[in-house]
Parts: sequence; C-alpha cells; structure tokens
Amino acid sequence: MDNVNLKQLAKELNLAVSTVSRALRDSHEISPETKERVKALAAKLGFQPNPHASSLRQSKSKTIAVVIPEIENNFFSQVMNGVEVIAQQKGYHVLIYLTHEDNNREKDILNVLRNGRVDGLLISVSNKTMEFDHLLAYQDAGIPVVSFDRVLDNIDTPKVTTDDTEAAFKATEHLIAKGAKRITFISMGLNLSISSRRKAGYEKAMHKHHLHASTLECGTDDNENRAMIRSLLQSKDRPDAIFAAVEKFALITYEVCHSLHLDIPGHVKVIGFSNLSAAALFNPPMSTVVQPAFEIGKEATAILFRIIEKKTLLSAEKVITIPSVIVERKST
Amino acid sequence: MDNVNLKQLAKELNLAVSTVSRALRDSHEISPETKERVKALAAKLGFQPNPHASSLRQSKSKTIAVVIPEIENNFFSQVMNGVEVIAQQKGYHVLIYLTHEDNNREKDILNVLRNGRVDGLLISVSNKTMEFDHLLAYQDAGIPVVSFDRVLDNIDTPKVTTDDTEAAFKATEHLIAKGAKRITFISMGLNLSISSRRKAGYEKAMHKHHLHASTLECGTDDNENRAMIRSLLQSKDRPDAIFAAVEKFALITYEVCHSLHLDIPGHVKVIGFSNLSAAALFNPPMSTVVQPAFEIGKEATAILFRIIEKKTLLSAEKVITIPSVIVERKST
Repeated sequence: MDNVNLKQLAKELNLAVSTVSRALRDSHEISPETKERVKALAAKLGFQPNPHASSLRQSKSKTIAVVIPEIENNFFSQVMNGVEVIAQQKGYHVLIYLTHEDNNREKDILNVLRNGRVDGLLISVSNKTMEFDHLLAYQDAGIPVVSFDRVLDNIDTPKVTTDDTEAAFKATEHLIAKGAKRITFISMGLNLSISSRRKAGYEKAMHKHHLHASTLECGTDDNENRAMIRSLLQSKDRPDAIFAAVEKFALITYEVCHSLHLDIPGHVKVIGFSNLSAAALFNPPMSTVVQPAFEIGKEATAILFRIIEKKTLLSAEKVITIPSVIVERKST
Repeated sequence: MDNVNLKQLAKELNLAVSTVSRALRDSHEISPETKERVKALAAKLGFQPNPHASSLRQSKSKTIAVVIPEIENNFFSQVMNGVEVIAQQKGYHVLIYLTHEDNNREKDILNVLRNGRVDGLLISVSNKTMEFDHLLAYQDAGIPVVSFDRVLDNIDTPKVTTDDTEAAFKATEHLIAKGAKRITFISMGLNLSISSRRKAGYEKAMHKHHLHASTLECGTDDNENRAMIRSLLQSKDRPDAIFAAVEKFALITYEVCHSLHLDIPGHVKVIGFSNLSAAALFNPPMSTVVQPAFEIGKEATAILFRIIEKKTLLSAEKVITIPSVIVERKST
C-alpha cells in the first residue's frame, strides 16, 4: 500500500491512517460500515495492494524473524507466545527458524535473511555457537537484532535474559537447606554464557556452604546422557541431590531414579530449570526453577520494535534481566 | 535474484543453477573456492539480490504460512518441527500465526495473507470455526491450502489427520478390557470434526460392549473445566474411568484425583490424547493416545509443496490418515 495514497484516502474519508489500513486488511476491529466506505473509495482509486511492492517502496517488510534452537520445548514455545503478542499488536508477521543446535545452519539462516526479508531479528543462539561473525554482519548491515536467553556476551546487541546466576544460587541453597551435601550440577554447552552463569551460581552457593562442587557435562545425544547419569547414580559415592541446568536432564534423572528404584527425595533430591507445568503431576511432583519465558519473549520483541521504530534505547533497555521463580515441590 | 541471470552465471561458471544459488546464499554445503568464483562473477555483473524484487518478478514469495490455535502444546510444536524439515529442504521461509482459538483473529490473519505474501497455507482451524468463507476465498484466489488435524469436512482442501475414530475406539476398548464400565468421555469443541470423530469412536466401543456412553463437554476456561471435572469425580455415581479427548483435560483429571485422594487406576482409570513424553514420569505413569504429530506436519507440508509446484495430486494424497498409537502405562 502506498503511504501517500493511504494518507490521501484517510484525509478524504476523515479517518485515521491506521483505521484505513485496518479496514483494508478487513480487521474485525473496524465496523462493517467503515470498511465499506474505505473499500469503496479504494476500489474507485484502483488500489492493488501487494506486500512486495509495498516492501520495495517502504524498505519495510513488516516481518521479523525468530531464530531459536528448537520449538518442542516449553521454554521456547512460551517465548513464541510472548513474541506473537507484540508482533500482532504491531501488525507484523513472524518468521520462525529452528537451528536444531547446528551452528552452520544458524549461519545459513542469518545469511539468507540479511537481504531485506526482515526488519529485525530475535535470536537465541545454538549451543555450538562460539563466534559471532554472522551476528556482526547484521550490525554492519544496520538490521536490528535482539538476543535473548542464550546471549553472547561479546557482542553489542540488547539482551533479555533471566537472572541465571541468582536463580541457580538460590536453587542450590534450597537443596542445601533441605539437607543435601553432595550435589551434582548437570550442565550442557558450557561455552554458552547462560550455562556458565548457572554453573557460577551453583558453585558460589556450594563454596559459601563449604561444600565440594561437582559438574557432569552432558551433550546432545540423550542415550549417552542417560548412560552418564545412570553411571553417576550407580556409583558408590552417589550424589544425594541433582541440580539439572536443563529440563531434559531433570527428566532423565527421574527416569533413571525410577529404573534404579532410588527414592526421590529420600535417596536423591532433584531440582531442574524447567517450564513444564505438568512437573506438578510427576512422581513425586518436581521442584523447578521456572523461567519467565513469556515475559522474555514479550520484552525482547518490544525492545526490537523500539529499535525498528528508531526510538532511542535507554541504557536500562539494553540489558534486561527478568527474575526466575523457584517452585518448591516434593522432589526436594 | 533474476532467473535468467542465475542461469547465465551458472552457464558461464559451468555449475548447476542450484549450486550458484546456494553459493550466493553462502550455504555451508558449497566449498569456499566455489563460493569465491561465483561471488566474483556475481559482483562483476553487478547483482543486487533483493527478495521483494525477486518476489515481484517471480510472483513467488518463497514463504508458506502455518496457522495454528496455539504453540504451547506438544502436538502443535511437534507439527512445526515436521513443517520445518520440509520447508528447509525446499529453501522456503515459514511464517507462524497463532489464533488462540479466536475465529475472528483467524479470519483477520487469512485476509492479510491473501495478497501474495505467501505461496501456500497450512491450517488447523480454531475450535470456534463453524463456517469457512475465509478458506473458500483462498481457493478462489488460487492460493494452495492444506488443512491438518482440525480439518473442515465441508471444504475441498487436501486434509492430513490421524485416525481419530479408530484411535478413540481402541482406547475405549482398552479401558473396557481393564474392567472399566462407567467411562466418561471429556471433550471440547464438538463442532470440530476431530472432536466428533473421537466421540464417535468412543460411542461405538461403548455401544459394542452394551455400556452407557456419557460425555462431559468442557470449554476454554480451565478454572471452570477443573470445577466441572471435580464435581463429576465427587458425584455418587462417579465414573470408574476418564477418557480425555484433549491432553489438558487428562492433566486436570490427574490434578483433581490427587487433590480428592482418588487412586489412579484403583478408583479412576485415566487415558488421554497426549503427545507429552513426560507423561511417563507422572504419578502414576499416564496411558496416552499418541498422535503422529511430526509426521502430520511433514506430510501436510509435502502435499502443500506438490500443489505449489503444480504437480498433480493423486486422490490418495487428498485425504491422508496417519495412525495414532496407544501407549499403555499404569493409569489404566
């Protein structure tokens, strides 16, 4: 839709430009009478709305992209819900890309998107992303980028995360308060800043209480992970608590405890970062560190639109931290 | 990218057009040497790739849209994974839209998309969609549509579903084989064909075994649903089994049984349609009807591309049914 013509239409009809635009898009927010008036005049003036023509004229695609490792994951699906709320308010379209933790795929996706298909990008990097040329290229091209959750510390984009260090510290102290002494921290992708922040919080709490910190580093192959966790829980000096930095390691810990007939929390206490509400139905109900996934999605998208709309970011908007909540259930 | 020029480039370099295209997109599948050769010639000939210009020339947006009720749901997130596999193979972009079960929103989304932004549409309708003018408009405009899971019987698009009637019949017979006699079927949105198909399968099995069928119709407000299920399970002639047509009703049934100290499966057996793998960790592990969500996403997308590429659909490709699997666990 040509801006000038939209304005002319609006002027002639004595309506706001946004009303005319929504009427042409057949929004249910506009009354049938108004839609009819707008469409009649639009037809008279011979509009042929075409999003690509419009994009060429305005250099706006009205589209943002979200690049995430996976979608079959409660955290990222709740993030998508938050993204969608804001994008929908702004009348924007949302492209979704899954990297499946493949750094090369992430680069390919970003390369393809850099040529004007999107007005901005939201990204949570793969757990194999160690360097960030593909993100720097966006900065060079002047395309707004906001990173969230799995952010890269060395690159200057606005970042929206939760308070990983604090939350991990509190979760560890919670286990200690419940009597745990030999707590193993199960982590993945320690190159990622969120993983190292969560580990730092765990280690800080262990150090404060003069306990020995011990980390099990798992990978992407769940059969291997299961074998590693099984062997840990079969060892003579078995931990009396597991703190899983990633939801799926908490689920595997449950499976392994059930199959080894280890009582939770009697033999092993378990807590994990997880946004799975059904954790309350587990045997026993699982204590979790719940991340503000929906809010992270909303905030990251709101910040992205501030940049797209060329508003000045306050420095408080460049690094946003939204606290996680510890939900205590019977597993601890 | 202009087709003719891509061809010229490919000819001059003695490479396949697809190789040149991928080299220009910086794909990791192409060697650095080849990329350099291609880019050098492209630079010499002064290419300015622009996706909107390209879309205008080719009338192809290289984009498909997926319209679904929600994403915070294991079924739909697994479907998205299947969609993405095929779209990625085809070099296509995927727009995602959530209707949140709002029929007006669904119409607005479809109206906006009809003007060339997408080459095709995948849709699973909201549970309030009773008429389908907004889908007929796509047929009139010649834009390919494939519907999946929640399909509308009255409209002539290819449909990809699971065998809802059969699966519900088998799940009901499974409960009966385990000794259940008073089985309540909990459903939602009986206007949807999947809901009525599931109900028909349940009723067929009850009828076959000379048992009285009884349905509880829930809605979108989970507090009301919880109250209804609680009152059902507190009644004197409480059912001895619940068959939930929708995952969340099975979860609420678990919650209510736990809070009323009703033993599962001793007092009440429970089975539900659900793609939640963590159902195995529930107290007790929950029996489920697992839908082939990933395969539904893949099949629906593959069919959509056959239409986009103007291949003739075999009649077997117009209505595809992929069977669900009953996973028996301790709740039955």
